[in-house]
Amino acid sequence: MFYIIGLGLSDEKDITVKGLEVVKACSRVYLEAYTSILLVPKENLEEFYGRPLIVADRDMVETESDEILRDADKEDVALLIVGDPFGATTHADILLRARSLKIPTRVIHNASIMNAIGACGLQLYNFGQSVSLVFFTDTWKPDSFYDRIKENVEIGMHTLVLLDIKVKEQSEENLARKIYEPPRYMSIPTAVSQLIEIESLRSEGVLSPETTLAISMSRVGSEQQRIVCGTLAELASLDNEVFGDPLHSLVIVGKRLHHLEVEFAEEWATDKANWRKVARESYAVALDEPST
Amino acid sequence: MFYIIGLGLSDEKDITVKGLEVVKACSRVYLEAYTSILLVPKENLEEFYGRPLIVADRDMVETESDEILRDADKEDVALLIVGDPFGATTHADILLRARSLKIPTRVIHNASIMNAIGACGLQLYNFGQSVSLVFFTDTWKPDSFYDRIKENVEIGMHTLVLLDIKVKEQSEENLARKIYEPPRYMSIPTAVSQLIEIESLRSEGVLSPETTLAISMSRVGSEQQRIVCGTLAELASLDNEVFGDPLHSLVIVGKRLHHLEVEFAEEWATDKANWRKVARESYAVALDEPST
Repeated sequence: MFYIIGLGLSDEKDITVKGLEVVKACSRVYLEAYTSILLVPKENLEEFYGRPLIVADRDMVETESDEILRDADKEDVALLIVGDPFGATTHADILLRARSLKIPTRVIHNASIMNAIGACGLQLYNFGQSVSLVFFTDTWKPDSFYDRIKENVEIGMHTLVLLDIKVKEQSEENLARKIYEPPRYMSIPTAVSQLIEIESLRSEGVLSPETTLAISMSRVGSEQQRIVCGTLAELASLDNEVFGDPLHSLVIVGKRLHHLEVEFAEEWATDKANWRKVARESYAVALDEPST
Repeated sequence: MFYIIGLGLSDEKDITVKGLEVVKACSRVYLEAYTSILLVPKENLEEFYGRPLIVADRDMVETESDEILRDADKEDVALLIVGDPFGATTHADILLRARSLKIPTRVIHNASIMNAIGACGLQLYNFGQSVSLVFFTDTWKPDSFYDRIKENVEIGMHTLVLLDIKVKEQSEENLARKIYEPPRYMSIPTAVSQLIEIESLRSEGVLSPETTLAISMSRVGSEQQRIVCGTLAELASLDNEVFGDPLHSLVIVGKRLHHLEVEFAEEWATDKANWRKVARESYAVALDEPST
């Protein structure tokens, strides 16, 4: 059997009991290490699971899937995925390959950022499509996310913005050698400034620094989880330390907003009075005026 | 500390290791039993967790939350939620109440239908807002879901349709007495026929029995998981036994469809040739013609 097992979002104890039983029983266990990361090193997982893990980077999962699947028709092999196996990417390729090799497969689900983002208090019902934001360079500023956010904004939906992770990237001069750049994780201030940059280039009024509300979530699901909310301009102006270590995710708040959601998130607002003011005036949320 | 702990989707072993440690250590543990159900009885959970669980029905969670929160500032209390605590409902009310009582809270996430639905192979990125479908009666056929599906369809997004669960409902003659109807779970044929009924009443061309593709998922995440896909007319025509026991969920496939997604789901198509034909002709997916 070939298992794909979600690890959840934060540390070695976020695996399910069912997943852990499988991990302990498999002949080989691979850890996929490029679409997202846990907040603890691989060694913590190996110690807790009581077995070695084989790191599977992008090359391996994409081009050596037959090695991962080797003998999985006769023994149990597992691929561990941070979050859920069908979170930000579907891993359909390797499952299709297993199917064509007549290897039975099983998926063990877990939390992913796609549902745990609900911890910000916004109803998951009212999220539209998600977008990914990549690091801009001087010459490359892909902006297709802007059209997608626009579609969501026009029907009042919230947008989950997944921020770029660069793991095992190579600089141009090192392309021929196996030398990699240190990993980079996009932070909230970078993400928000990129959003504002594209808004000022496109000028279609999808985002407004002063009247678009957003909620940042750092290290979702961990004890170090942090939530900060405010207007885009407010979030862009905060020091990166406010958000803390990676990973960061961002929600752009759509107009279909309920006063209970505003009140739930108010605790994390960088400026509570302005949070309520913008919700009342720009989102037409029925909120009490502040008591004077 | 007041913990809200997600149980995942299927059985007692879908809890995370972290969640199980908390469950074992709490003074009182409540099991929320109305927004969704696991596929095993409460007794299985109690035996595996090694402790009694207090069933918390809708009345209790909504009107007696102070009883659930009692002494949670001094000891550990947990509320267990099928799926993820922020899945289909946010449980923001009880968290807000805890906050106002100055009780610290912690959420332990898990898979929910909102992300595990990705197991059908469609990219979660391309799901729009979700909708709920309630059982129609002769006199009550709420159709606001139709407008929401329309918004998704117009921008090519997929729609997750959550099907009604009736637990602890009372008939009119039993309203004054504590006599409840047996639980009812909406099945795929009922859901699809209700969708088609509203399309024929509204006639806005959002759904087409012959050219709208849909994917049904039963008992997501369990060993008894079953996926069936086809046009709405095909799914409506199938016997309920094809889909098996509850719970059922439905995905209406949007136009932003990739050929790999069509190929991934083809295995579960009730009519593989028609599945490809509709994907090619009505969804404009570039697929090879069948080899002859």
